[in-house]
Amino acid sequence: MTKEIINIGVIGLGIRGRFLMNTLLEIDNANIFALCDPIGERLEQAATDVVSKTGKKPLIFADFNELLSVKEIDAVLVCTTWITHCKIAIAAMKAGKHVGMEVGGAASIEECWQLVRVTEETGKKFMLLENCCYADNELALFNMERKGLFGELIHLQGGYEHDLREEIVLGKENKHGRLYNFLNRNGDLYPTHQLGPIAKMLRINRGNRFLMLTSMASKSRGLHEWILENKGKDYYLANKTFEQGDIVTTMIKCAHGETVLLLHGVSLPRPYSRDGRIQGTKGIWLEDGNTIYLHGISPYNIQTCHEDPHQWENFDNYRKTYRHPLWLEYEKKGIKEGHGGIDYLVLSAFADCIIKDIEPPIDVYDTAVWMSITCLSEQSVAMGSMPVPVPDFTSGSWINRPELKPSKYSLDEVHEDLFI
Amino acid sequence: MTKEIINIGVIGLGIRGRFLMNTLLEIDNANIFALCDPIGERLEQAATDVVSKTGKKPLIFADFNELLSVKEIDAVLVCTTWITHCKIAIAAMKAGKHVGMEVGGAASIEECWQLVRVTEETGKKFMLLENCCYADNELALFNMERKGLFGELIHLQGGYEHDLREEIVLGKENKHGRLYNFLNRNGDLYPTHQLGPIAKMLRINRGNRFLMLTSMASKSRGLHEWILENKGKDYYLANKTFEQGDIVTTMIKCAHGETVLLLHGVSLPRPYSRDGRIQGTKGIWLEDGNTIYLHGISPYNIQTCHEDPHQWENFDNYRKTYRHPLWLEYEKKGIKEGHGGIDYLVLSAFADCIIKDIEPPIDVYDTAVWMSITCLSEQSVAMGSMPVPVPDFTSGSWINRPELKPSKYSLDEVHEDLFI
Repeated sequence: MTKEIINIGVIGLGIRGRFLMNTLLEIDNANIFALCDPIGERLEQAATDVVSKTGKKPLIFADFNELLSVKEIDAVLVCTTWITHCKIAIAAMKAGKHVGMEVGGAASIEECWQLVRVTEETGKKFMLLENCCYADNELALFNMERKGLFGELIHLQGGYEHDLREEIVLGKENKHGRLYNFLNRNGDLYPTHQLGPIAKMLRINRGNRFLMLTSMASKSRGLHEWILENKGKDYYLANKTFEQGDIVTTMIKCAHGETVLLLHGVSLPRPYSRDGRIQGTKGIWLEDGNTIYLHGISPYNIQTCHEDPHQWENFDNYRKTYRHPLWLEYEKKGIKEGHGGIDYLVLSAFADCIIKDIEPPIDVYDTAVWMSITCLSEQSVAMGSMPVPVPDFTSGSWINRPELKPSKYSLDEVHEDLFI
Repeated sequence: MTKEIINIGVIGLGIRGRFLMNTLLEIDNANIFALCDPIGERLEQAATDVVSKTGKKPLIFADFNELLSVKEIDAVLVCTTWITHCKIAIAAMKAGKHVGMEVGGAASIEECWQLVRVTEETGKKFMLLENCCYADNELALFNMERKGLFGELIHLQGGYEHDLREEIVLGKENKHGRLYNFLNRNGDLYPTHQLGPIAKMLRINRGNRFLMLTSMASKSRGLHEWILENKGKDYYLANKTFEQGDIVTTMIKCAHGETVLLLHGVSLPRPYSRDGRIQGTKGIWLEDGNTIYLHGISPYNIQTCHEDPHQWENFDNYRKTYRHPLWLEYEKKGIKEGHGGIDYLVLSAFADCIIKDIEPPIDVYDTAVWMSITCLSEQSVAMGSMPVPVPDFTSGSWINRPELKPSKYSLDEVHEDLFI
């Protein structure tokens, strides 16, 4: 591809779509060519935004198929409800568009396979816009792990845990799709923010893979209690049963014996945490408490009876010392808005991989397996925590898929090998 | 029983047995009448200790059966290796002795049943000496939970996680039984320190019960690496395979829909933690980080875009405010040595429940189900994380087992209702 600037269509203009659309305005080589949302009001507001910031009026569509038929569009961002991500992405690639897809979980294994096959058949670029993979903290930890500071990886942990009760319950008013998922489903509905960085660290799909998992869901109380407290017993959802358990726990086993523990809990009052833990033969990092212990580096006092000689250290200094080169440069050039700057990085990588015709750093195999955890956890919960196998979406190529040689990181280019 | 002072035989004089024996010397109504250990040196040293502190020479035995035949002995403490706890406890009750048993996991479900049946048949007092149930922190949290501060319980978590590599590897030299467990078994080998307080909080066996669990073990690397680093490749264990995974994760489902997450990891370098988490509909406490958030109490800032309004608080003030009455009194009277004072409390309760002829606060049904988690987790790991049912050792009586009315707590008497 020789184009210097790519024309992008943004499909889905809810809170997240608007957010990404605005971040896209910061990307030099991206041009917002068209917008799409079935809700007219959203569409008009978003178009007005673009005009006021760029002076150019984008095309607008209520139907994504119409947007996909516009020849000038090179790529689309899919920012719709969770259960429509895959089908729109698939239609877009079939229509010859590259796809940047927002995160979410899969509803079926089959839609993950279709995503993989259509990407392979069309040769279009497909990238999951998993912004947390680009986070300052996550990349510093990734950097530390690749330098061997944790030793051999043994156990990793992550969660998506905060209080989304109001956002979920007001789904109908706010036209947000989460509500219907919580009413009807029961599993780890949103695994990728924590699982993405974990999977990259574990080299999943490049010499390692997720073998199987088992999930357990707690009872469901949080949303119902919130409704009674804030909306009263006559609210239209007050007598509805939310099938989604307040806390869903998932254990995943990897081909090389590592274990991954995931927690999902967004319907109880609590501060935000991704509940991170990285543990290897040489040390451990914990997000909660912001602490780290590294063998041979962290303080180890001479042992007295029943006093622990191992001393936690605050992680802040390590974060500074091992900051990823990409972030060092990013800070110098000025960090953009959007979840602490990570939206810019992930969108920038997406645009770049189209322009330079290279593999996306978060590809369709990553996407398929990360998203599949949602429906697999639903299956396991439904069957009383039975273990279920995780499909190998590379059909065996994970065994000897090449590890690219890491490049010199620069903000001016995408890094297909960023997570290698 | 009308005796004011009970004669106790201590069986097993390894590190833990010596420790408890010394704590027993602090208990006014307990008299160390006999000691037992097959290792002569240990036995002599322990006896010398008792003589030097009390002026009275205890009887000494190499064979526990001989000790059990001594008529004057009212009760025994069983502090032997994990896999001999139950058989000695059973023999002791059959010989007419009350039993205080050290913690550990069960090797079979059948030995748990036998423990239950023999206790029922003999009518002897049986108590698990789970000291962590008596910890200052745990009792303060218990107090808070019973006052409703966490709302309805949803998800509890606990771990046994520290660096025991040296202790395990040097098992043969130090005559410690752990080594053989780590060479041969794979499961949550030591669940009760964290599970005891959790089970009490969840009213297990009194209106609630553990239904089933599933466990997953990581690969095993920590002990082998420690040996190579500290003992060299010619050490007799350098080529041995340790079957025990470095991290074993277990999920337990309760009858009322609560989930319990347990972690076991003692073969990697890290500071000590019991990895506690209590989460209900009104709040959450985390041991790591020493933080708490309580709905309507902890700070909640007005929400700005993507800033979390929920603010963690340090737990220290809550620990002071909600300190358990037992500990308030204990501090006034002077806290005894032994794991921060908890060994004294648990032994004191054991002695008291014999003297006053009341039910032990940690009874044989508690013991059986807590210990059973070990062999059940081994079964689940062996079967690829298959869910396995947890037996109901009360044979149905958990459904309407009476909740005793809490008494006014005092150090001078045992509290059979302490954990109600």
